[in-house]
Amino acid sequence: MDTKRIKEAMEYRRLIDTLLDERQYADTVLQGGYIINVITREIYVGDIAIKGERILMAGNAADLIGPHTTTVNVQGKFVSPGFIDSHMHFESAMLTVTEFSKLSIPTGTTTLVADPHEIGNVLGVPGMQAMIDEAKTLPNRVLYTVPCLTPDVPGLETAGAEINSKDMEKLLNDPYVQGIGEIQGFSNVMPVYRHASPLIDDLIASVVYAKSIGKTVEGNAPGLFGKELAAHIIGGGTHVSCHETTTKEETVEKLRYGVSVFIREGSSQRNMSECIRAITEEGVDSRRAILVSDDMVPEDLLKLGHMNDIVRRTIAAGIDPVEAIQMVTINPATHFGFTDVGMLAPGKRADIAVISNLEAMTIDQVYLGGIKAAEKGELVLDIPSYTYPDSVKHSVKRAPVTIDDLRIKTTGAQAKVRVMEVVPDQNLTGGSEVSVKVTNGVIEPDPASDILPLLVVERHGRSGKIGKTFIRGMKLKEGAIAESVAHDTHNIIVTGTNYEDMVTAVNRVIAMNGGICMIKEGKVVGDLPLRIGGLMTDELTGKEMSDHIAKLHRLAEEELGCTLHVPFMHLSFLSLVTSPKWKITDYGLIDAENFKVLPTIL
Amino acid sequence: MDTKRIKEAMEYRRLIDTLLDERQYADTVLQGGYIINVITREIYVGDIAIKGERILMAGNAADLIGPHTTTVNVQGKFVSPGFIDSHMHFESAMLTVTEFSKLSIPTGTTTLVADPHEIGNVLGVPGMQAMIDEAKTLPNRVLYTVPCLTPDVPGLETAGAEINSKDMEKLLNDPYVQGIGEIQGFSNVMPVYRHASPLIDDLIASVVYAKSIGKTVEGNAPGLFGKELAAHIIGGGTHVSCHETTTKEETVEKLRYGVSVFIREGSSQRNMSECIRAITEEGVDSRRAILVSDDMVPEDLLKLGHMNDIVRRTIAAGIDPVEAIQMVTINPATHFGFTDVGMLAPGKRADIAVISNLEAMTIDQVYLGGIKAAEKGELVLDIPSYTYPDSVKHSVKRAPVTIDDLRIKTTGAQAKVRVMEVVPDQNLTGGSEVSVKVTNGVIEPDPASDILPLLVVERHGRSGKIGKTFIRGMKLKEGAIAESVAHDTHNIIVTGTNYEDMVTAVNRVIAMNGGICMIKEGKVVGDLPLRIGGLMTDELTGKEMSDHIAKLHRLAEEELGCTLHVPFMHLSFLSLVTSPKWKITDYGLIDAENFKVLPTIL
Repeated sequence: MDTKRIKEAMEYRRLIDTLLDERQYADTVLQGGYIINVITREIYVGDIAIKGERILMAGNAADLIGPHTTTVNVQGKFVSPGFIDSHMHFESAMLTVTEFSKLSIPTGTTTLVADPHEIGNVLGVPGMQAMIDEAKTLPNRVLYTVPCLTPDVPGLETAGAEINSKDMEKLLNDPYVQGIGEIQGFSNVMPVYRHASPLIDDLIASVVYAKSIGKTVEGNAPGLFGKELAAHIIGGGTHVSCHETTTKEETVEKLRYGVSVFIREGSSQRNMSECIRAITEEGVDSRRAILVSDDMVPEDLLKLGHMNDIVRRTIAAGIDPVEAIQMVTINPATHFGFTDVGMLAPGKRADIAVISNLEAMTIDQVYLGGIKAAEKGELVLDIPSYTYPDSVKHSVKRAPVTIDDLRIKTTGAQAKVRVMEVVPDQNLTGGSEVSVKVTNGVIEPDPASDILPLLVVERHGRSGKIGKTFIRGMKLKEGAIAESVAHDTHNIIVTGTNYEDMVTAVNRVIAMNGGICMIKEGKVVGDLPLRIGGLMTDELTGKEMSDHIAKLHRLAEEELGCTLHVPFMHLSFLSLVTSPKWKITDYGLIDAENFKVLPTIL
Repeated sequence: MDTKRIKEAMEYRRLIDTLLDERQYADTVLQGGYIINVITREIYVGDIAIKGERILMAGNAADLIGPHTTTVNVQGKFVSPGFIDSHMHFESAMLTVTEFSKLSIPTGTTTLVADPHEIGNVLGVPGMQAMIDEAKTLPNRVLYTVPCLTPDVPGLETAGAEINSKDMEKLLNDPYVQGIGEIQGFSNVMPVYRHASPLIDDLIASVVYAKSIGKTVEGNAPGLFGKELAAHIIGGGTHVSCHETTTKEETVEKLRYGVSVFIREGSSQRNMSECIRAITEEGVDSRRAILVSDDMVPEDLLKLGHMNDIVRRTIAAGIDPVEAIQMVTINPATHFGFTDVGMLAPGKRADIAVISNLEAMTIDQVYLGGIKAAEKGELVLDIPSYTYPDSVKHSVKRAPVTIDDLRIKTTGAQAKVRVMEVVPDQNLTGGSEVSVKVTNGVIEPDPASDILPLLVVERHGRSGKIGKTFIRGMKLKEGAIAESVAHDTHNIIVTGTNYEDMVTAVNRVIAMNGGICMIKEGKVVGDLPLRIGGLMTDELTGKEMSDHIAKLHRLAEEELGCTLHVPFMHLSFLSLVTSPKWKITDYGLIDAENFKVLPTIL
């Protein structure tokens, strides 16, 4: 018998002894609260008795209270299983797992299922391993669903590492890896089928391996219906989720098809009010409806909360409170096959959220494995900050660029060019053809028409390519913005009102070993070093990051005249080739619907 | 990649090609039925498209119909996932798995989860393996949940084999083994804790091994509440079922504690009308309510049906039809972690029941892996009969007994003795003390007072013991009944109105190598050879067995004057030491609540 099994057996025996030997008692009893039973969808008065990391009983625990038992009076409060965020990216918060957790634990979140897709694109398996290693140091539960394909579209973009089925055995056998993450390589079903059919075979090889060892697979099926949806689901091994469902009709269709609908309601994309109508209006069974954040910025975690806030909004949208809590407890636990969290029942892990106001979802106390971790919104458990190894902090492998590298050139006095179009608050884009002026063989930025050069500079030390096109809608009046956060391969993306500032911005990002940078008239207006893979930092706490980002947004408006909401996020999604219509990679302008490079200059 | 994974990958690819390549089509389309969607709890009109063994689509499949597609018009009919019986014993029907399946498939049952506990007690792992081998030949899905302990109460009864944690690795790694079966060794929580504590450690060792390889554990917690229920659940690894719940209060408590309540509604025990009140009256979430048969006799399968009849009764008890069908499809699939059955969705196995009348649960057609297996109650798929190897047909290892072996002897003219009491239609018993007459040192049977000798003759070639006591309530007027079906160790149990007929009955069972036998005045009144472990036969079809049992019941009444309902079943449960109060084993009269042998003669 291995150590893990011996430990588990000893725990069970100890719990049984405590229950049956009348001389033994619970360590802690939460007394007289309103128990939220997510199995039966009931609320009733009862106690929660805890021994070690686990729940002994949820009911009348009076005779489990001994002379050394800690009792906590929770009368009038609601006692719920801790919340699960079933799909999220730490990279979106640009924080370490530790700093994110310090913000999310006091809000009642006790389990995070994270997709390390971004760092996977930059650093491959070792990058994800570094995040997995961090998770193992934490008192909350952090599991990963890992990508089985990087880059998303091989041959049209350059990632720092190619992940495919060959990497799955090592990755998926780690106990902190829950399964395969969002299989967005097959989200865009027909184009992939027509243009990149071998990808499907590699995807299936990964998926059947994952299933064979009892791991799960998450899908990602935005806008899919009917046969394409069916093909995507089968590609994921027939049991998948989707966290990019945006309409009631899509929600109903996906639930009917067996998809676990991960209703997204995070910082950037909010789909709950629409998706929830499948339940409030159509009355479908909600057992496969699950609330997720996907992306959370530190400011929202601090100001609004995390899953508690999403539950609060879901209750406000007309869902019964216990049913809403099911969507962040038993429903995700069932989806993932978690056997020890997601409910308050004998033998389960004592991950508990005590709620003082159910409609407001005010979190009074949080327990992690029976230990009080937070009270009244403040962490009471000491969680030391975590420093990443130096090996993940040198991911920008590129010599400085010159102005000649960046200029978009052509002949003549006038040119017809393709221009990408920002769609505010969406990660998809539009596109059009416009006439622009050519000066001395160069197409200069045109801030007056809001048509600016948009470039992706490969930074993984591989292709060395620079892809070039134009963007309309960034609303930049002066200077330049560059960043190494550029979905999904995270090369350096840059735009600006003049090539000089763009050069300075790119080279500053290179010099910082990744990050975000704003330049005006050759000077740094603001920056944020993101040394971990060019995506995250271990140098800031959540509060510091929140303040810093707010400052950068203010400076973008004040110094660069940029009135676009969250401009760094918009910029970072202009390279995401898995969503329509046109995108930019180091290969150039990409037709994301037909999987081909489009010439920018016609 | 192993063969199984390659085959699965090829299947997925073939399904995706069929969906996306417009020159490819479904093999079969069930057109225009009312689809019963057990995920969303909806009914709507749609098609089911099938390719190979799997479902391509459940929705509008018009453009998947090609020139070679078989179309089946199911307009006006209801199309449901095939039904799952989550807890049953083939031994109760005394038939092979094949003959049982031939009766159950036409009723819409497509998956059987069987507990081979009985044959395990007689023949150990090789006996269960023989049943597993048979399952592998069948077109329906048959999985096993295997015992982790035989006998149930070591030291108080003699089984043919001792199964414990040492056997789990071999057994549980078979893909046809779903997990560990009913852990009734820890059903009787406090007595086991006080008197047989090491059993709990061995149980836990088996349970944590099962969990470590992703297998499930079934509990069995009759009458348990509070701390004892919690201890039982933890002993089973925190996620268990119970199929012996009999009251509304017990149902509510168990659901609250996280137990999957297997509501039993088979031939012998019917608990649905009481348990279902947890849902109809208390309104609890039914996601963990599951309907099971436990024991089905062939006559009922033929006359009433199987899971379809249980669903019918559940609907009649006030449950919405789709919710009732959830209890035999998605609910059990979720409990066991089945990823490919229990719902009609893309990529799932095409195990389908077409229902012509929902309230009556009349089954019109049944598909197994896309193949039509039954129509209008008749099997249309050829399933050859199965013959067991000779190795399992010699399980009765005992020389004939003599009258002197069986007589209950004492001194004096009068004796005070303990007498077990039949409780009609229950597997528990009562007990009392009575005075009886002693004639020449022998206590003779007293049919006038309905007090008869009750003996268990060890037949595994091990202890050689004969346990002796008295029984009141068998209502036998003449002759004797003996049988090798005697829960759970299946020694030969015998009762009778005279010792001579009892000797003849026992020796006839020995000579048949197992079975049931009735003797009157030295002659065989009726018998049933059960050569497979002394429990089952491969010599009769379901219809033949049904007719034969009916004949035996008639003969029991006509020839022996026995007016007790199902006397063979009552007799067989008088040795079940895991239920109260007094039971008989080869060790003698057992106090099942205090785990000790009681003297019969005071």
